[in-house]
Amino acid sequence: MTKTDIAARVFNHTFKLDPIIRSLIDTDFYKLLMLQMIWKLHPDVDVTFSVINRTKTVRLADEIDEGELRAQLDFARTLRLTKKEMIWLAGNTFYGRAQIFEPEFLAWLSTYQLPEYELVKRDGQYELTFHGRWKDTTMWEIPALAIINELRSRAAMRNLGFFTLDVLYARAKAKMWAKVERLRELPRLKISDFGTRRRHSFLWQRWCVEALKEGIGPAFTGTSNVLLAMDSDLEAVGTNAHELPMVAAALANNDDELRAAPYKILRDWNKLYGGNLLIVLPDAFGTAAFLRGAPDWVADWTGFRPDSAPPIEGGEKIVRWWQEKGRDPRKKLLIFSDGLDVDAIVDTYRHFDGRVRMSFGWGTNLTNDFAGCAPSEIAGLKPISIVCKVTEANGRPAVKLSDNPEKATGDPAEVERYLKFFGQEDRVAQPVRV
Amino acid sequence: MTKTDIAARVFNHTFKLDPIIRSLIDTDFYKLLMLQMIWKLHPDVDVTFSVINRTKTVRLADEIDEGELRAQLDFARTLRLTKKEMIWLAGNTFYGRAQIFEPEFLAWLSTYQLPEYELVKRDGQYELTFHGRWKDTTMWEIPALAIINELRSRAAMRNLGFFTLDVLYARAKAKMWAKVERLRELPRLKISDFGTRRRHSFLWQRWCVEALKEGIGPAFTGTSNVLLAMDSDLEAVGTNAHELPMVAAALANNDDELRAAPYKILRDWNKLYGGNLLIVLPDAFGTAAFLRGAPDWVADWTGFRPDSAPPIEGGEKIVRWWQEKGRDPRKKLLIFSDGLDVDAIVDTYRHFDGRVRMSFGWGTNLTNDFAGCAPSEIAGLKPISIVCKVTEANGRPAVKLSDNPEKATGDPAEVERYLKFFGQEDRVAQPVRV
Repeated sequence: MTKTDIAARVFNHTFKLDPIIRSLIDTDFYKLLMLQMIWKLHPDVDVTFSVINRTKTVRLADEIDEGELRAQLDFARTLRLTKKEMIWLAGNTFYGRAQIFEPEFLAWLSTYQLPEYELVKRDGQYELTFHGRWKDTTMWEIPALAIINELRSRAAMRNLGFFTLDVLYARAKAKMWAKVERLRELPRLKISDFGTRRRHSFLWQRWCVEALKEGIGPAFTGTSNVLLAMDSDLEAVGTNAHELPMVAAALANNDDELRAAPYKILRDWNKLYGGNLLIVLPDAFGTAAFLRGAPDWVADWTGFRPDSAPPIEGGEKIVRWWQEKGRDPRKKLLIFSDGLDVDAIVDTYRHFDGRVRMSFGWGTNLTNDFAGCAPSEIAGLKPISIVCKVTEANGRPAVKLSDNPEKATGDPAEVERYLKFFGQEDRVAQPVRV
Repeated sequence: MTKTDIAARVFNHTFKLDPIIRSLIDTDFYKLLMLQMIWKLHPDVDVTFSVINRTKTVRLADEIDEGELRAQLDFARTLRLTKKEMIWLAGNTFYGRAQIFEPEFLAWLSTYQLPEYELVKRDGQYELTFHGRWKDTTMWEIPALAIINELRSRAAMRNLGFFTLDVLYARAKAKMWAKVERLRELPRLKISDFGTRRRHSFLWQRWCVEALKEGIGPAFTGTSNVLLAMDSDLEAVGTNAHELPMVAAALANNDDELRAAPYKILRDWNKLYGGNLLIVLPDAFGTAAFLRGAPDWVADWTGFRPDSAPPIEGGEKIVRWWQEKGRDPRKKLLIFSDGLDVDAIVDTYRHFDGRVRMSFGWGTNLTNDFAGCAPSEIAGLKPISIVCKVTEANGRPAVKLSDNPEKATGDPAEVERYLKFFGQEDRVAQPVRV
């Protein structure tokens, strides 16, 4: 005779909302580092963030119920930092540095809540935008993406029976573990989880992170997810993102300011953070233009994160630049994070091993790879390429060029103007899968 | 770190319908015994069954969603007897008798499905009726009631948090076990579960039945629920119900037939069943009238089930009648089943112990007693007095008088006619709680 926990069963079957985001630190660590800089240096800048589904063939508004989406976004807006979270942020060491967050910043953060959102359905897509102070809206990026991606998974699994689900996750676990076994073959591997935004679900990301912790041990250098870092005693990792140069460029009043924008934010960053946090993200307006115009001190930074060129090609360009600048690449760090899966990780590792320090930020293919796991293929389980980008700053358009034209965002006329200004050498279209 | 079975959790949180009735034998055993008789002797009689909520203050249509009610009723209509159930019904011994069900009847039953229903909302109540052949509609009584009662419990618990639910069931279990401990003090107790129709939920009834099995051992003589009897290796108990004399009376063409109706169905019953199944339910048109008009052979039956008079008073009248008829009450059986709880069981047991054989059919207060269990009282968890009665036979009104005017059902004018015909001696109104 089956014994049933009746209370647990009634709870499971009468629940109303299963919140996707249950904590404000269920976000990427770089958001907190950037937030402190924005709060300190740009408290009065207004920006607009916009969710952009680059996989147009997937009609999100047909897959995800608007009521459920609003309920999840509304729930996220009720969250505040908890006492435990505040104590951990204040007391933990990040990148070897104690008290990385100023007390005044933490005091402000302790009352922070996610601001309002605007949601409109158009042509089978959702237009989800966040208007307001940069320091308020910036924190929507990760929860907005995680909510949309998990709602999509849930919708895709809504009609699956118990055994189908059981097999689905069993296969996903087996698939993930096979990746772990391949990664074990790389003796000096350093890899971390960057998969929060496009994860299949929070619980699945947690499983993957814990599997890596157990499976590859010290080669697993941390997770970008602050909540998982806290709960699993892992390093919280990540530095900065495109929104910094994008806003700086949008606010530039003339050509000189526009040309200086990408380096100005690096100087600002350096004032706040140092050491391992000095990682350059060079591709906002094209890596070639960035390297060509970069002051010498940029070569003193710890490393680069090439984020849109093929990893070996993009990495080689940066290694060459370091050499030209007279720096020893073996003391420098390359962080690869663009659409990686195990094959690319292994190839890139073998290519650069011994020539440069490197680490990998593993995203969507870590936390949302269910291809071949469902008994019959379910389209809704295939990850989409969706981002949440700053599209306006103080009323002016903000754009990103990227090394891959497919990853460019913003007003097309403005993209054109930037392309003329920064040039488009080495820009090659690559298919964007995730 | 909590370990979560992701597949189980996704299943729990994406499920669509949690069916209340999952088996056609999740019903009272007496329905099957009566069904065989109806199928054999009255295959062409048309009847209407109607669900009647006697607790008018509870507006069921406000508490229960119509879509959910229809989904549950529709699901029940998809059920058929399973192979295992058929084999068990054919092979099991009931009341010490093998092959109580004829092969022809089982062959017919194997294709049986619940017939259509009519559902209308009126004045905050549901009018739920079943029209058609008696042999088809009669089987709706128990699932219809169980569905309404469990949907009401679910609605009442919909907004409870996990700990509230955990405490609710913990208290209900503690309360139930305190009853078990009191019942243990009665050395010759015979008691069975009659609580299917008004149960809080299927899972809770199963818990109560298993608790009694473990808690009072051989004093627990079985359950009226055929599915639980099969699954827990218990005796399936129950004999016949008011619908038999009610239909017989409705079909009577003249006063003589009406007067003979309650005894005629006993003769028919005797042709089909014997021994311990010869239990008289005397109160359909008043126990006093029944006893006054009863032929002598009725006193040879095994026992009586007084169902609407206070147990001690009602039992004494039957004991006296046996004595007048020259029968020894110590060889006779009284089955008490009307709104019993532990106090009434203990009092009745102590009153009759040694003077007459007796057993108890414990219903609503066994399977739906949550008073004082919720952290703050929840009205929707208080059981209501709801029945599903035959209201028409071949187009003629069917009524029940009962010994308690509060339990009378049917067209008021027809009730009046029956009262004049059968008399109303000893009819005393008692509050009907369940």
